[in-house]
Amino acid sequence: MTFEQYLEESQARHLDELFALLRIPSISALEENRSDCVHAASWLAERMKQAGLEHVQVYPTAGHPLVYGDWLHNPDAPTVLIYGHYDVQPVDPLHLWRSEPFEPQVRNERIWARGVSDDKGQLFLHIRAIEALLQTEGKLPVNVKVLFEGEEEIGSPHLGPFISEHAAQLAADLLVVSDTGMAATGVPTICCGLRGICALEVRLTCANTDCHSGLFGGAVPNALHALTALLAKLHDERNKVAVPGFYDSVKELSAAQRKQLAAVAFDETELLRRLELSAFAGEEGYTVKERISIRPTLELNGLWGGFLGEGSKTVIPAQAFAKISCRLVPDQDPQQIAQLVASHLQRLCPPYARLEVEIGHGGRPYVCDPDTPEVQAISKALSATFGQPVAMERMGGSIPIVDTFVTVLQAPVILMGFAPPDANAHAPNESMELSTWRLASRAICRAWYELAKSA
Amino acid sequence: MTFEQYLEESQARHLDELFALLRIPSISALEENRSDCVHAASWLAERMKQAGLEHVQVYPTAGHPLVYGDWLHNPDAPTVLIYGHYDVQPVDPLHLWRSEPFEPQVRNERIWARGVSDDKGQLFLHIRAIEALLQTEGKLPVNVKVLFEGEEEIGSPHLGPFISEHAAQLAADLLVVSDTGMAATGVPTICCGLRGICALEVRLTCANTDCHSGLFGGAVPNALHALTALLAKLHDERNKVAVPGFYDSVKELSAAQRKQLAAVAFDETELLRRLELSAFAGEEGYTVKERISIRPTLELNGLWGGFLGEGSKTVIPAQAFAKISCRLVPDQDPQQIAQLVASHLQRLCPPYARLEVEIGHGGRPYVCDPDTPEVQAISKALSATFGQPVAMERMGGSIPIVDTFVTVLQAPVILMGFAPPDANAHAPNESMELSTWRLASRAICRAWYELAKSA
Repeated sequence: MTFEQYLEESQARHLDELFALLRIPSISALEENRSDCVHAASWLAERMKQAGLEHVQVYPTAGHPLVYGDWLHNPDAPTVLIYGHYDVQPVDPLHLWRSEPFEPQVRNERIWARGVSDDKGQLFLHIRAIEALLQTEGKLPVNVKVLFEGEEEIGSPHLGPFISEHAAQLAADLLVVSDTGMAATGVPTICCGLRGICALEVRLTCANTDCHSGLFGGAVPNALHALTALLAKLHDERNKVAVPGFYDSVKELSAAQRKQLAAVAFDETELLRRLELSAFAGEEGYTVKERISIRPTLELNGLWGGFLGEGSKTVIPAQAFAKISCRLVPDQDPQQIAQLVASHLQRLCPPYARLEVEIGHGGRPYVCDPDTPEVQAISKALSATFGQPVAMERMGGSIPIVDTFVTVLQAPVILMGFAPPDANAHAPNESMELSTWRLASRAICRAWYELAKSA
Repeated sequence: MTFEQYLEESQARHLDELFALLRIPSISALEENRSDCVHAASWLAERMKQAGLEHVQVYPTAGHPLVYGDWLHNPDAPTVLIYGHYDVQPVDPLHLWRSEPFEPQVRNERIWARGVSDDKGQLFLHIRAIEALLQTEGKLPVNVKVLFEGEEEIGSPHLGPFISEHAAQLAADLLVVSDTGMAATGVPTICCGLRGICALEVRLTCANTDCHSGLFGGAVPNALHALTALLAKLHDERNKVAVPGFYDSVKELSAAQRKQLAAVAFDETELLRRLELSAFAGEEGYTVKERISIRPTLELNGLWGGFLGEGSKTVIPAQAFAKISCRLVPDQDPQQIAQLVASHLQRLCPPYARLEVEIGHGGRPYVCDPDTPEVQAISKALSATFGQPVAMERMGGSIPIVDTFVTVLQAPVILMGFAPPDANAHAPNESMELSTWRLASRAICRAWYELAKSA
């Protein structure tokens, strides 16, 4: 039996297994889901063993556990380190989901569930591929090491130290990550650039208690007024980030690079229609495609203060809160940008208010060289499987740990992702196309053959 | 036994009874507390009967019930209509309360509980006074009608129609309301002006779903950016309300009136210390006292959007929400001002966003003549009881229904309130001084005697 036949015949069983994994609500950000993350890790370890991986082990951390396994019986072939994450984003606002986030459903030829694109559905593709090759050929054309973590969505606080401590164990010729998306439905895509990220939490305090807006309104400062005034000054009238120094280390693209980027298919009208938007927003002087991939941003991810319940409560809020994150491009440094934002806010804070800024997780931006033999080999496998040329794309998302892998392991990285452009990762109604999920494991098997040939 | 002796001897029992009332969580804004409002109304009806009131009846409404009772056996004396409300404000943020909001405690010679100042503690003073006079004298020096409602904190939607339908039943020579505060501890106070109010809720929508801030950040509009930008334009750099037309109908005070207002004791330093504030905010060109009493305001009472949980969620929020209220002064009209604010926001709303504004409850501002015989009579009783001259004050709060009473019943109103300046009404740790609560019922008894004499 060929691996293609094996994948075809195992399709239904593999989908059932993926559903079992998707049912585990492994939200890394929430304390209440801690045991679910442990559960997901041990589930994966079992499944990796079944697939034929060896030395499978769950590594506890101070946060959520890591899972490792390998198959290393091909001393003359290159070694690939496969990275993925089993943790997922929170699911609120829950009422906007058309089906339960942790009860996967197939509708309209798609799988709907939190994590199906980001990243459980994608990491499972690699397990399927390894199993198919070992069951049909009895061996892999390359050596593989598999590392799955449970803290990607909270900034991978324990993965960096783990990589440093296990550098020899993780040593590889190539790192492959399947946590990105496809340029369009059915278009195989290699991501050759990612934005970095930095995150901040802001608390603004005026009085030591909420006050009656009748008795004190007009004189006792309102934390929401102070905070909205500050936040409104984070962008200028051209929608550029107004933090001094924010763009200082940004490398502008050459005209040729901008032209290359523009050549990748991107359907603005379809995106507007899907999001029911009349127009895009964003930085003047750049295309929509550029704004979401090669330009840095600053976004408010959350904001709250005062009375949030039903009806009315005529109160002067004493405190107000905001969650802010920036997407970064070469050569912005996450720590430095977070500091610039914090200083800008402190400078603008009125005398009657006190501002506390907590700087959270960060990750540097990443770009890769599209002309290496490894990229060429994997491109060949992808285009042969999907019947289309590979799109080489810079993407707007962040996988901060990529930079650590590259630095510590001194190996190139290939971001080969299968999420659809409308995956709704991090949002309600996350999904993945069944057709892509069917083809992708086949493409991965072929990629290992092409890689072995090119070495 | 004199009524003074009766009040002294019944002190402990009356306090127990007040505590029982305070334990009922009659929050009018929350659906889950609907039955508590019914409970508070029936509790009051029973207690009014015990005090000797007649024709006691609970009147159901489409919202929370009203309670009425009277004593009308003094045909030659004037009739006083006493108004109060048994509903209370919500209690969040709950973690800031030093004791449970609905488990009253005495600490530092104060009673601590939600509603003890606003307004259960104050309406109970009237029940005590009526009981003391009927138990010791067998009669009242005036006729009284008592009307308590359960929807003051949500804008009294059913009281206006009730007053109109029961105008004959409620007819009186004077309306007395004890729902305001004292200028300073121990200083008896008549409130001769109240601000009006209007309230709005705003919902701003961009896309039809939250989006991943990496994949779409920079182009897909962020509802929090759009809303904070709008809200930041509600005040100008001098902290004046920037809504066109907002001040058009505001009557400026004369120099003499401003001087009179400045003469009322107001300890700015103490208020700053108590709220742990380094400075006040507010409109340039007016004193702090003026800003909180005779100037109109616009306040954000609540604001939220995006991810509010622990940790980080890198999302572009699709929707953002705000609760806004304005305090109004003569001759601003609530409906008109709410419309001006709504139109201003709609005008500023960017093309990629959709703004929905819901206009909530409103109430007109109120000012009274301090030189009438009724005001003089009641002032005499207050100053005799508290041993200090009465402060005549304009206050910043709103009791919207006062305007309806005046219009429908064509009777003057006296606002004789006993809440301390640091009552924390509408905020965590609401309280009232025990010493004031002890004296106030005595002052009320005396007020009825003085009123009968002056008639």
